Amino acid sequence: MGSLGPYQRKHKVAVIGSGNWGTAIAKIVAENTAGNPAIFEKDVQMWVFEEKVEIAKDSRHYDPSSPLCQGPQNLTDIVNTVHENVKYLPGITLPDNLHANPSLVDAVKDSTILVFNLPHQFIIKTCEQIKGKILPYARGISCIKGVDVNEEGISLFSETIGKILGIYCGALSGANIASEVAQEKWSESSIAYDPPHFDSKAPSPNRSPSASSENLVQFEHKDVSGQLSRVKLQALPSEFPPVDHAVLKSLFHRPYFHIRVVNDVAGVSLGGALKNVVALAAGWVDGMGWGDNAKAAIMRVGLLEMVKFGEKFFGATIETRTFTEESAGVADLITSCSGGRNFRCAKLSVERKQPIEKVEETELNGQKLQGTLTAVEVNNFLKKQGMEDEFPLLTAVYRVLTGAMSVEDIPSYIER
Amino acid sequence: MGSLGPYQRKHKVAVIGSGNWGTAIAKIVAENTAGNPAIFEKDVQMWVFEEKVEIAKDSRHYDPSSPLCQGPQNLTDIVNTVHENVKYLPGITLPDNLHANPSLVDAVKDSTILVFNLPHQFIIKTCEQIKGKILPYARGISCIKGVDVNEEGISLFSETIGKILGIYCGALSGANIASEVAQEKWSESSIAYDPPHFDSKAPSPNRSPSASSENLVQFEHKDVSGQLSRVKLQALPSEFPPVDHAVLKSLFHRPYFHIRVVNDVAGVSLGGALKNVVALAAGWVDGMGWGDNAKAAIMRVGLLEMVKFGEKFFGATIETRTFTEESAGVADLITSCSGGRNFRCAKLSVERKQPIEKVEETELNGQKLQGTLTAVEVNNFLKKQGMEDEFPLLTAVYRVLTGAMSVEDIPSYIER
Repeated sequence: MGSLGPYQRKHKVAVIGSGNWGTAIAKIVAENTAGNPAIFEKDVQMWVFEEKVEIAKDSRHYDPSSPLCQGPQNLTDIVNTVHENVKYLPGITLPDNLHANPSLVDAVKDSTILVFNLPHQFIIKTCEQIKGKILPYARGISCIKGVDVNEEGISLFSETIGKILGIYCGALSGANIASEVAQEKWSESSIAYDPPHFDSKAPSPNRSPSASSENLVQFEHKDVSGQLSRVKLQALPSEFPPVDHAVLKSLFHRPYFHIRVVNDVAGVSLGGALKNVVALAAGWVDGMGWGDNAKAAIMRVGLLEMVKFGEKFFGATIETRTFTEESAGVADLITSCSGGRNFRCAKLSVERKQPIEKVEETELNGQKLQGTLTAVEVNNFLKKQGMEDEFPLLTAVYRVLTGAMSVEDIPSYIER
Repeated sequence: MGSLGPYQRKHKVAVIGSGNWGTAIAKIVAENTAGNPAIFEKDVQMWVFEEKVEIAKDSRHYDPSSPLCQGPQNLTDIVNTVHENVKYLPGITLPDNLHANPSLVDAVKDSTILVFNLPHQFIIKTCEQIKGKILPYARGISCIKGVDVNEEGISLFSETIGKILGIYCGALSGANIASEVAQEKWSESSIAYDPPHFDSKAPSPNRSPSASSENLVQFEHKDVSGQLSRVKLQALPSEFPPVDHAVLKSLFHRPYFHIRVVNDVAGVSLGGALKNVVALAAGWVDGMGWGDNAKAAIMRVGLLEMVKFGEKFFGATIETRTFTEESAGVADLITSCSGGRNFRCAKLSVERKQPIEKVEETELNGQKLQGTLTAVEVNNFLKKQGMEDEFPLLTAVYRVLTGAMSVEDIPSYIER
């Protein structure tokens, strides 16, 4: 790595979002732009939703004589001075070349690679704000977990981003707990990226940069619901290293964060959604005291139904191996069923004989469980397709949530 | 279930072995023979290696006035009187139709289905003792976990049994902890059974029972090392229900013990061996405090290498899906990496900074870890094939065991 050929220009990278996962990913990206000067510009912009923050007295950055500690300050000023996101990723030193920027438009300006890492409910609004203000040939990576499921069908967040901005956008997902990644505890992740072929072509000496920067390539794109559309995508000027699997690996892979890059965007995204539903069942079963065998059985059936869901509704665009071999599939499922919040709340709801909404209230500090929402959305979708019976575990989770079934009935229900 | 057609004769079932897993399986089998009177004779023989046992004072069966409690008694007498294996599966009531038999030859006499469930070091000796004394058309199921790996190749315990006895033998393996299964906590298991086709044919009205009981069918069998041999197998007389997947499911499936029957004997057996090696790595990583992400990464890589091992060395005889979809594959791997003894000892060895042999001594009461033995055997085999590099996790486990590598080096070693 570090030398992918003599290109005249380098990629400029921006990270959109600065929660705990956004900041952890921005740290990784900035470490890698600094380490790969032949491909990337060193400085990385991170868009931070500006807010006033006070440095806590127990922070290592608390110094009563410092101007930063005289009452609430801009979060961006704090990040850029002490190189720590004291609010969302406290205790982790960020690289000097990572710059917090309160202006969304300024942060993405001139960037060829945009990394999206913000709560999914903000995607559309955020993209609308930068539409037309980014490089037309930029490429995106969405680190937003899951998919958007409703009765009508399933859409990928990466596709939503790509459609609004008129760019190609891939996805990153895996068995990643933000705080552990930030502490550089070893883990793995999957990137899925499958742009039209011209992106990975070696630059042609006959293609002038200015001409190719105008180069609109039209291609047909079939989204996950099977809808075919003509997409116009601007080719990356040939003076940039092509944004291919190798370049993305240089941008995200670290000794403590192993990346595998695949083509299957739908599979990588779907795994991150369905595993939360399975984790609820695993938590219930564990709460019943049924032991490790039973929990492993739930995870096995869950993995099977994830594969089947992909095969049924995504057809040829999905790879079975994504679920069974990639971090975004089986590994993320395992992590979520070991100690993720869906698992923990479901387990507590059985142990305390409380509805899960009650546990959610007392344990999650106002946050919502992703698994319960996804279980309902997936069930609405399956019901509309007339396919509840073919996904007995996903259906059982919904039925237990609505009180139509008890946890004791899950084994016989999924036996069919 | 319960009615598979009007056959004149029923299957008689014997269980060979009565440790905790042997007794738990015998309990299941006896429950099912009682529940399926159209297919099975009710009474099940369980061979018990006879020993003198005293009923403990805290046992629910202790009664100072009972003759059974006047000093040490035959284990078979105790089992047949109080219907509990007080030594190896205390606290679990066994069905009345399960009979402990101290005579191996008498236990298997006239049985059409033989269930082998004893420590693998006793297989050969036990089979030699009943060779020629069983029905020539009996069928076997081996519940012995793992495979026999050495430098020369890999052999399946089910094949060893089948070869010595001249019968066909399948395998049962899964995410099963004996005590949990005995307590009827819900779990799953896999049976692999793929006999020559004549076994599953419907009985022909033109084939007389006596003729067919003499019927030696010769077929070619390719074992896991690729060696082709001619096997003569005696056809099951047509007055018995054919021993097929449905009959095996009736014999082993319970509401608390869900069975899936597949054809892939090699895959089901191999999973039970390799998962123990992976569990060592999972234990080390957990002992380092690297968290759930890292543990899931080890399990993911382990699953990949199990699939690859199967594909490389078993070729067309193995199904990738066995590893990724069956209880004997991914689910057993998950259970073993959650709390199995290989996992626990490996974890303790890191936490205590002790060699794993030391932990084994203090924690296992004289028993040996299967994973460390298998890791060495598998490495000898891979070395001979010149394929250590293609299985970096399996190789890393061996190197850590021999001190050639430290646990800290595993992530970079398996990154290649």
